[in-house]
Amino acid sequence: MGLKSFVEVQSDSQFPIENLPYGVFRPTPDSEPRIGVAIGDYVLDLSVIASAGLFDGPLLKNSDCFNQSNLNKFLELGRPAWKEARAILQKLLSDTEPILRDDAFLRQKALQPMDDAEMLLPVAVGDYTDFYSNINHATNCGLMFRGSENPIKPNWFCLPIAYHGRASSIVVSGTDIIRPRGQDRPKGNSPPYFGPSRKMDFELEMAAVVGPGNELGKPIDVNEAADHIFGLVLMNDWSARDIQGWECVPLGPFLGKSFGTTISPWIVTLDALEPFVCDGPKQNPPPLPYLTEKESRNYDIELEVFIKPAGQEHSYAVTKSNFKHLYWTISQQLAHHTVNGCNLRPGDLLGSGTMSGPEPGTYGSLLELTWNGTKPLSLGGVTRVFIEDGDEVIFTGCCKGNGYTVGFGKCSGKILPSPY
Amino acid sequence: MGLKSFVEVQSDSQFPIENLPYGVFRPTPDSEPRIGVAIGDYVLDLSVIASAGLFDGPLLKNSDCFNQSNLNKFLELGRPAWKEARAILQKLLSDTEPILRDDAFLRQKALQPMDDAEMLLPVAVGDYTDFYSNINHATNCGLMFRGSENPIKPNWFCLPIAYHGRASSIVVSGTDIIRPRGQDRPKGNSPPYFGPSRKMDFELEMAAVVGPGNELGKPIDVNEAADHIFGLVLMNDWSARDIQGWECVPLGPFLGKSFGTTISPWIVTLDALEPFVCDGPKQNPPPLPYLTEKESRNYDIELEVFIKPAGQEHSYAVTKSNFKHLYWTISQQLAHHTVNGCNLRPGDLLGSGTMSGPEPGTYGSLLELTWNGTKPLSLGGVTRVFIEDGDEVIFTGCCKGNGYTVGFGKCSGKILPSPY
Repeated sequence: MGLKSFVEVQSDSQFPIENLPYGVFRPTPDSEPRIGVAIGDYVLDLSVIASAGLFDGPLLKNSDCFNQSNLNKFLELGRPAWKEARAILQKLLSDTEPILRDDAFLRQKALQPMDDAEMLLPVAVGDYTDFYSNINHATNCGLMFRGSENPIKPNWFCLPIAYHGRASSIVVSGTDIIRPRGQDRPKGNSPPYFGPSRKMDFELEMAAVVGPGNELGKPIDVNEAADHIFGLVLMNDWSARDIQGWECVPLGPFLGKSFGTTISPWIVTLDALEPFVCDGPKQNPPPLPYLTEKESRNYDIELEVFIKPAGQEHSYAVTKSNFKHLYWTISQQLAHHTVNGCNLRPGDLLGSGTMSGPEPGTYGSLLELTWNGTKPLSLGGVTRVFIEDGDEVIFTGCCKGNGYTVGFGKCSGKILPSPY
Repeated sequence: MGLKSFVEVQSDSQFPIENLPYGVFRPTPDSEPRIGVAIGDYVLDLSVIASAGLFDGPLLKNSDCFNQSNLNKFLELGRPAWKEARAILQKLLSDTEPILRDDAFLRQKALQPMDDAEMLLPVAVGDYTDFYSNINHATNCGLMFRGSENPIKPNWFCLPIAYHGRASSIVVSGTDIIRPRGQDRPKGNSPPYFGPSRKMDFELEMAAVVGPGNELGKPIDVNEAADHIFGLVLMNDWSARDIQGWECVPLGPFLGKSFGTTISPWIVTLDALEPFVCDGPKQNPPPLPYLTEKESRNYDIELEVFIKPAGQEHSYAVTKSNFKHLYWTISQQLAHHTVNGCNLRPGDLLGSGTMSGPEPGTYGSLLELTWNGTKPLSLGGVTRVFIEDGDEVIFTGCCKGNGYTVGFGKCSGKILPSPY
């Protein structure tokens, strides 16, 4: 690319000038939330840039979208405004542009050390939908719970299966998660177990962040769907397998999921991910016309999960996967979601479903990695079948470019014991 | 009660001084939304009452909760504030209180003819959950789709089954609903049908409107749950049975529901419903301790559904049911919802599930009334198995008191043809 910022960016940084992911942060504990982009070890405060009149393009000049406590208003503006912002910020941060580089006062105000910043949820999530669009995960779940004959139901190949998730309990990376209580399937004639979940799990997912969205009754065409997706985040769809298993027939997951969902603070834009586009999956049977894309695209994003066991300093990699293992693309998911007229709003999240690779070491949940608790994982002297109290689960995601890395930071959470 | 308002209230009005349900309205098409309560044929504008300094109790005196475009801020204040508001409003509207009665200027400003008012959604719904807590409906669905051996799964009797619904597509009564498109189960080796739904249905429900709610990780005790419920609305959980049937395994309903959900504009408070409390259901097996209430209460609310067939002037009653046919009480639903730590927020909706009575003429959906399309209904010269384009579906709900009626107004919607 030849792009280079005057802000020092280490060669292994996930936040070079090619990335510029968006987030919401407090520079100091008592300050108001503000919108920023990550650059190297700094966060560029966009409220400062806006106040300095530097968003001078036609779409953003008179907008107050960066003087907000979340990104929703910016998301609503759509791709032309997103591209305008990106072009301005890449120019402003480049080493050949003096405006910010040579203005010590403005630089001091605008660039905040990332270490000091408290990251907040980047969007107000109106609705959160979780898809189930990874064939390896669907196959593994089917093999475990339905047997080897027909592990995947026929509808799975015809449409992107999904359910509505809980928006209120979405939290930003770093937020502790309290082990949920709930019922487990009864044994024999006993009443159901009730107490802290005994099968706490993570699900390695990414989520698409919705941009302008649509009015009720007006579906979005699959070939225009990408214009409604601002970017992606890492997402841990924490799952209490015991609660989920007992409650989920016939209406799907509920309390087994709704106690918490963690997302990464940084939204990496589709524009930053463009160099990492790869071919979409082969789909057989071919999708119906409303799901047929002129060009089917996935993204080559390396995903990794680490567990830092309770009381230990070290974290251990437990899986390596990739976002390209997505059967139904994010455009197909979004088009399907709206085909019945359902309206999407700026800031809505579309979870991908658990991103398992094809081999055992690449599965995206402990359910699959330990095959429902039958194959313990060894983590530096301790073993795990599910998540124990005090364990921290850390997701990373990054794209390897030519001489640079576009990353998502991390998406982490620690499980605290149930206080009950 | 002996309560009487100086505002004329017809003897058959659903909005006597004993009711005072809350809503949000525009008095004229261009005016800002404001909060009001219904009294007879009028809406009392609470922003006017607040500006006149008449909310002079300790909890509301310095609050701007009635200068909002929805009720969420008032709901957050909790039952003591709700009781204070009710006492003030009942006094202000009584025929023995001169403040409003004798002030022609204030009366003119505060009392708006209901016929001129445009009703809006009363709350901003953060999350909407739909329960499945009616045993007759669950039995009927089980008989139709699972057979007569075990129509209801064992988990149903142990916990209030529910799923997350779509919040964005909740609309207020009177909003047209566009017939959704979607897939239907394939026949033989053909691809799935795709097009406008051929099995459009209503579901007769009520929904509890959540008050203060709880922090993430802090469950609400079942015996304190009622303090977190402000009131009830009528709710039509429109359902495309064909779409739902094909998509719903294994993750539950999605596009078969998310194209629209209609609620009545008036929230009738639990305080107004107190005289209509009746015994809760007998539950066998007995609920687990976290679901065991000191006192189990239901509400005796008569529900009725009318269909006004396309092109006709007359509407025909198709079912009569009652909200007392609820197996899991609203307190149990709320306590269960939070037992895993899930947080509820002011304005969240908890749908009851379809309220079917025990006999055929009391079922709460066309699915059940026509037994999945096999027994057509006759409506004044036309027949229906599911809802046709142009049909309007109207729900009513009311409680018969001693010399007065507490009602919910109506919850209606017309199905428009798919434009595709």
